[in-house]
Amino acid sequence: MLEKAHKIAEQLIAWRRDIHRHPELGFQEFRTAASVAEELEALEYAVQAGIGRTGVVAERGEGKPIVAVRADMDALPIQETNDVPYASETPGVMHACGHDCHVAIALGVATLLSTESFPGTIRFLFQPAEEITDEEGLSGAPRMVEDGAMDTVDTILALHVDSSQPVGEIAIADGRVTAGVDSFRASVMGDGGHGAYPHTVVDPIHIAGHVVLAIHGIVSRRIHPGDAAVVSIGSITGGEASNVLPDGVDLSGTIRYMESNVQATLHREIERALSVAQTMGGDYTLEISTGYPPLSNHPAVVEVVKQTARDLLGHEHVASGRQEMGADDFAFFSSLAKGAMFRLGCRIEEDERKHHSPRFNVHEDCLPIGTAVLAEAALRLLGG
Amino acid sequence: MLEKAHKIAEQLIAWRRDIHRHPELGFQEFRTAASVAEELEALEYAVQAGIGRTGVVAERGEGKPIVAVRADMDALPIQETNDVPYASETPGVMHACGHDCHVAIALGVATLLSTESFPGTIRFLFQPAEEITDEEGLSGAPRMVEDGAMDTVDTILALHVDSSQPVGEIAIADGRVTAGVDSFRASVMGDGGHGAYPHTVVDPIHIAGHVVLAIHGIVSRRIHPGDAAVVSIGSITGGEASNVLPDGVDLSGTIRYMESNVQATLHREIERALSVAQTMGGDYTLEISTGYPPLSNHPAVVEVVKQTARDLLGHEHVASGRQEMGADDFAFFSSLAKGAMFRLGCRIEEDERKHHSPRFNVHEDCLPIGTAVLAEAALRLLGG
Amino acid sequence: MLEKAHKIAEQLIAWRRDIHRHPELGFQEFRTAASVAEELEALEYAVQAGIGRTGVVAERGEGKPIVAVRADMDALPIQETNDVPYASETPGVMHACGHDCHVAIALGVATLLSTESFPGTIRFLFQPAEEITDEEGLSGAPRMVEDGAMDTVDTILALHVDSSQPVGEIAIADGRVTAGVDSFRASVMGDGGHGAYPHTVVDPIHIAGHVVLAIHGIVSRRIHPGDAAVVSIGSITGGEASNVLPDGVDLSGTIRYMESNVQATLHREIERALSVAQTMGGDYTLEISTGYPPLSNHPAVVEVVKQTARDLLGHEHVASGRQEMGADDFAFFSSLAKGAMFRLGCRIEEDERKHHSPRFNVHEDCLPIGTAVLAEAALRLLGG
Amino acid sequence: MLEKAHKIAEQLIAWRRDIHRHPELGFQEFRTAASVAEELEALEYAVQAGIGRTGVVAERGEGKPIVAVRADMDALPIQETNDVPYASETPGVMHACGHDCHVAIALGVATLLSTESFPGTIRFLFQPAEEITDEEGLSGAPRMVEDGAMDTVDTILALHVDSSQPVGEIAIADGRVTAGVDSFRASVMGDGGHGAYPHTVVDPIHIAGHVVLAIHGIVSRRIHPGDAAVVSIGSITGGEASNVLPDGVDLSGTIRYMESNVQATLHREIERALSVAQTMGGDYTLEISTGYPPLSNHPAVVEVVKQTARDLLGHEHVASGRQEMGADDFAFFSSLAKGAMFRLGCRIEEDERKHHSPRFNVHEDCLPIGTAVLAEAALRLLGG
Repeated sequence: MLEKAHKIAEQLIAWRRDIHRHPELGFQEFRTAASVAEELEALEYAVQAGIGRTGVVAERGEGKPIVAVRADMDALPIQETNDVPYASETPGVMHACGHDCHVAIALGVATLLSTESFPGTIRFLFQPAEEITDEEGLSGAPRMVEDGAMDTVDTILALHVDSSQPVGEIAIADGRVTAGVDSFRASVMGDGGHGAYPHTVVDPIHIAGHVVLAIHGIVSRRIHPGDAAVVSIGSITGGEASNVLPDGVDLSGTIRYMESNVQATLHREIERALSVAQTMGGDYTLEISTGYPPLSNHPAVVEVVKQTARDLLGHEHVASGRQEMGADDFAFFSSLAKGAMFRLGCRIEEDERKHHSPRFNVHEDCLPIGTAVLAEAALRLLGG
Repeated sequence: MLEKAHKIAEQLIAWRRDIHRHPELGFQEFRTAASVAEELEALEYAVQAGIGRTGVVAERGEGKPIVAVRADMDALPIQETNDVPYASETPGVMHACGHDCHVAIALGVATLLSTESFPGTIRFLFQPAEEITDEEGLSGAPRMVEDGAMDTVDTILALHVDSSQPVGEIAIADGRVTAGVDSFRASVMGDGGHGAYPHTVVDPIHIAGHVVLAIHGIVSRRIHPGDAAVVSIGSITGGEASNVLPDGVDLSGTIRYMESNVQATLHREIERALSVAQTMGGDYTLEISTGYPPLSNHPAVVEVVKQTARDLLGHEHVASGRQEMGADDFAFFSSLAKGAMFRLGCRIEEDERKHHSPRFNVHEDCLPIGTAVLAEAALRLLGG
Repeated sequence: MLEKAHKIAEQLIAWRRDIHRHPELGFQEFRTAASVAEELEALEYAVQAGIGRTGVVAERGEGKPIVAVRADMDALPIQETNDVPYASETPGVMHACGHDCHVAIALGVATLLSTESFPGTIRFLFQPAEEITDEEGLSGAPRMVEDGAMDTVDTILALHVDSSQPVGEIAIADGRVTAGVDSFRASVMGDGGHGAYPHTVVDPIHIAGHVVLAIHGIVSRRIHPGDAAVVSIGSITGGEASNVLPDGVDLSGTIRYMESNVQATLHREIERALSVAQTMGGDYTLEISTGYPPLSNHPAVVEVVKQTARDLLGHEHVASGRQEMGADDFAFFSSLAKGAMFRLGCRIEEDERKHHSPRFNVHEDCLPIGTAVLAEAALRLLGG
Repeated sequence: MLEKAHKIAEQLIAWRRDIHRHPELGFQEFRTAASVAEELEALEYAVQAGIGRTGVVAERGEGKPIVAVRADMDALPIQETNDVPYASETPGVMHACGHDCHVAIALGVATLLSTESFPGTIRFLFQPAEEITDEEGLSGAPRMVEDGAMDTVDTILALHVDSSQPVGEIAIADGRVTAGVDSFRASVMGDGGHGAYPHTVVDPIHIAGHVVLAIHGIVSRRIHPGDAAVVSIGSITGGEASNVLPDGVDLSGTIRYMESNVQATLHREIERALSVAQTMGGDYTLEISTGYPPLSNHPAVVEVVKQTARDLLGHEHVASGRQEMGADDFAFFSSLAKGAMFRLGCRIEEDERKHHSPRFNVHEDCLPIGTAVLAEAALRLLGG
């Protein structure tokens, strides 16, 4: 299968570069989706567009089992600084997380499987908006679920390129692999006034100092040390003039967890930390928005992917991976079937490019490798 | 003298309302200054305009002693909400601190003294920009000093209306009466990154929490309890997204002191509190801007004003006043001669209006009272 | 009067050294009181012993006005390290605050006044236990008040030696001169357990960290900057083993204030700071014990003492003094009559000895100076 | 094997109760060791006493493989409050962690294996002092290693009773199972003085408040969220009098980690948190004592134990276990061979007894179960 994938390597690169040149933000992947649909129809897949707003679903085969492959399509609001012929042509938008590769690889898998015969059905989910949510707080995956994309699926596979790993390697972990994520917005409210008369006011910046330290005591003191958890305050804003104490300070932050009891504890303890504001004579508001759930890889599917990768790449090129606190909305899909996501090494040696950086790029040798592992694993899961 | 002042009460009110209707911000008091100069010339004072940019100096008499009376003329960038016939006609600008009254009263004093004969010289300093500083950080008083307004002055008097005191009373304190003020701008610098990976970043919001609490320990622990001192943080700003830790947090604040050793201690300890950022793996910048010095009333001048006020208003209507942490750039004048500033009660009973509020207003009965005390005290200091 | 005092200088030194050699703790001043009573009887004063437990009251003269002079007699539980012939002969007890001088000077005043004739009555109050309180929380002054020592007194004088001032000088301030003092005992309670399982416990040491910083924000944020106030935590104790989190942490501290509204604010805000423990899932207890009130000098009495000192010592040797946050139970006496306490310079130049240090000592030239000023001021207040 | 174990259940209970009645602290297990040696000699094991001070090693069989079974023998300095016939007869000493059971079970295993024939050698390590270290900071396991107890051992097994698990179950985890532990002692040094004059001192209790919160920010901000880590401050002590600020505050605490890079980060960051004391004008000392390393179970050995337990107890009675931050010095043994420790359920239903509590006790039905699993697993590892 690796050999077959190498034969279409130029095509994979062409797809990837075309998408890279024309990045589109979440729920606006019109050109990408149209292009994907066109290729899949040419391969004689049954294609449905407009699933989950701008998503595409394509199928081939018949009956059970149904194995799905997911690729996310959206780009990021970042201005590319790479000087390459295929650099983004859309100002301020860039594929800085490698979703262009995911689309190209999934098209590659569709190509390879279009000539295979197997029991059951292969289904492709080209997903919009993995990076952002819409006005109702939903990202692309739950929107596709709403439109039936996961109906009767038995197993779902995905990969994510990883610029911290060398090309030629994949990593896959059992169980929890990425975190659940919630976000919060809070205000610490005092009663402002002239900075020269602190005794006449309730100083919300002083109180916010206490709240910040109380929040950063939560993970240290209230969470089982073996449970992964994060509370980060990403912004703090209060006041304008040096000599006027403001009425309030606004905070926003991110919450990461692997287990729902940890999530509940974090929510409760953030509220408790903020309530120090009341104790000190002020008040607070807190609004927590639920985001993506944690992503669990199913052990049986992991085993198939691992064995596939070992067979194709050699035992020494398959790593175990570890839990990371990043999040992926693939979790919505994998909560509805047996699922697994693996990480595909794409590092440009001696010049590692960080994800979400304006210099992000991949070593394109990763494309046929990812295609082969994904195609072969899907085939094995189909029982082909 | 009180009787004489009451006789010109209508004129005082007319002046005050005219200026109130046409407020001008600091160093832009063109109309006010022109109007003041015109009145003073009509009273046959020797008038110089353009002193300290938009200030006016006027003199009458000859030789020593030289007694000065100061009135500040500038308004504030506040939209008036009072529904009075003489409300501000300039959108977004308002006499919300009573400088309109100061100008009217000083014109009243000039009127009363224009018919008196006395040894020495009376000089009026109509000052721009008490509330703000220019691009070089200087307010109206030091600008007038540069232009010679204080040359050879022996004694200088001023008053400030005070909406927390009843009409008919004045308060005057010995020694330090208002604070020295400096301002600071600081940054706490970390090394930002994704909120899900706190261990890979240096979190400046976390560090800022420590710095805020360290700063608020200074007055409690490092300053003699008998020394008045304030450090207030007026603004804190860092980060934009809930899930991205920023590179830094900006702070600004105000410093208040009565004694220069306290000022030095506050500067040193604020730097020390910020240097916690270095200890915690980050860094900081700190810029302290020197503002107005503390204002000291000269005991001998205070005694004359007090006795004058007791004679005119009765012993029970003269209060001792206390140190306040507000600042007034009259301190620049009074550091160059024997000076005293007193507070003139102007409270509207049962509806107190706070200074710097859009509803600020005064009980206009204070105008003749202030005029009488100031005129009589000046006359006594002249030896007349 | 200074001349007369110098004539008895040797006697003053002899008294002081005798008392210094035989120091006695509060309410145990048996030898000191007996010795004092004997001297006063020899001078033909009417003497009453056992007033306020171990205090002595002595009177001469008749009718009004009644002017009192107070001297405190108790020593401290400190082992003297001075190598002088008159060093303490009682192990672990020492006159380390100069009360030996106070007794000698008061005996000197009694000696000088025994040969003067004056209208009214001079009364001496030799007081026990200025440094400590008895089992009911009362020190020597209120105990003497209970026994009638202040009955019908019009004016009361006292002095305190001051090793930070040069010999030959006195300092006296108007109004508040020493602070009111309260003490507090508090516990921050959590729910202890094994240090390896912090999530199963409520960590009182973590909470105490927050409480300590909250307490040290009180003076900075909740008290008028012109009001002198102190909250100091003198002890913190919790836990024994490095790997076991305790159930609680005990704190104790001292509260200092000049005005009763400040005292009330400090009490309320300490409680508020402790209640952070409840917010964080623990609890607290707080017990505040009321100590000495603030000491106010009466302006009229201050004026007499100041003028006396200027006449005897020269204008330049009389300083204004400033508020200090130390406390003296003379405040109980001076709240019942017009009172004033002045500070008497006793510094050993180039080798300053701190009060309450095992090396404390005085320059004995201060003895006749204190005697003269006190005797003359008393005489003037008597109208003699 | 379970059946055989049940046949000796009364003997197991007798051994356990005898040891329970006669608890001995670490390195003082003279009676226990003598009793163990006697039993093992009766079973015709080759016995060596005095290994690692008071440890006992016993062997049977010949050549490779060598499989070891470890039992720790020491009790705790706790006064038992259980009212049972076999309660501790030594005041203030108690088997409150179940080591009495470990000894009884290991004797049971020795009994069962004494009648089996197998290739290789079975070795028993009866270990002193798991709970404490000697004057050189070493516990029983490293002392036995010094004396050759682990020489040529291939595989080592141990169990620990667990009162939070039901009888009839065992739990065993792969990889890291208990934490590495270090302890620290630190002082925050200021410059003490009278509590009424905070500006003249450097207040170590104030600084300690900052240090405590800085320490509790370490795990939240400086450690990978997926890495288990703990820093707990177990004691804080400074000051005696409410009105005297002390010179310093002493802290002690425990450090827990699974990976050596985490250990290094914790050491570095604790030092950094303490160095806030220098920033604030004070100083600090820090002494970190290295304790037990983390304990890793070898996957292959875990697999054998797991399979054994499933065969004997049923699949549903074998749990996976999770990482815990407690520590066990078995880690020293298992770092020198392939090792595994499992947890043996011993809960008294409806009356759970916490380890290290004076009411600790076990459901003795656990004894034959532990004996059977351990004996059978050892036999399988021997290849018998």
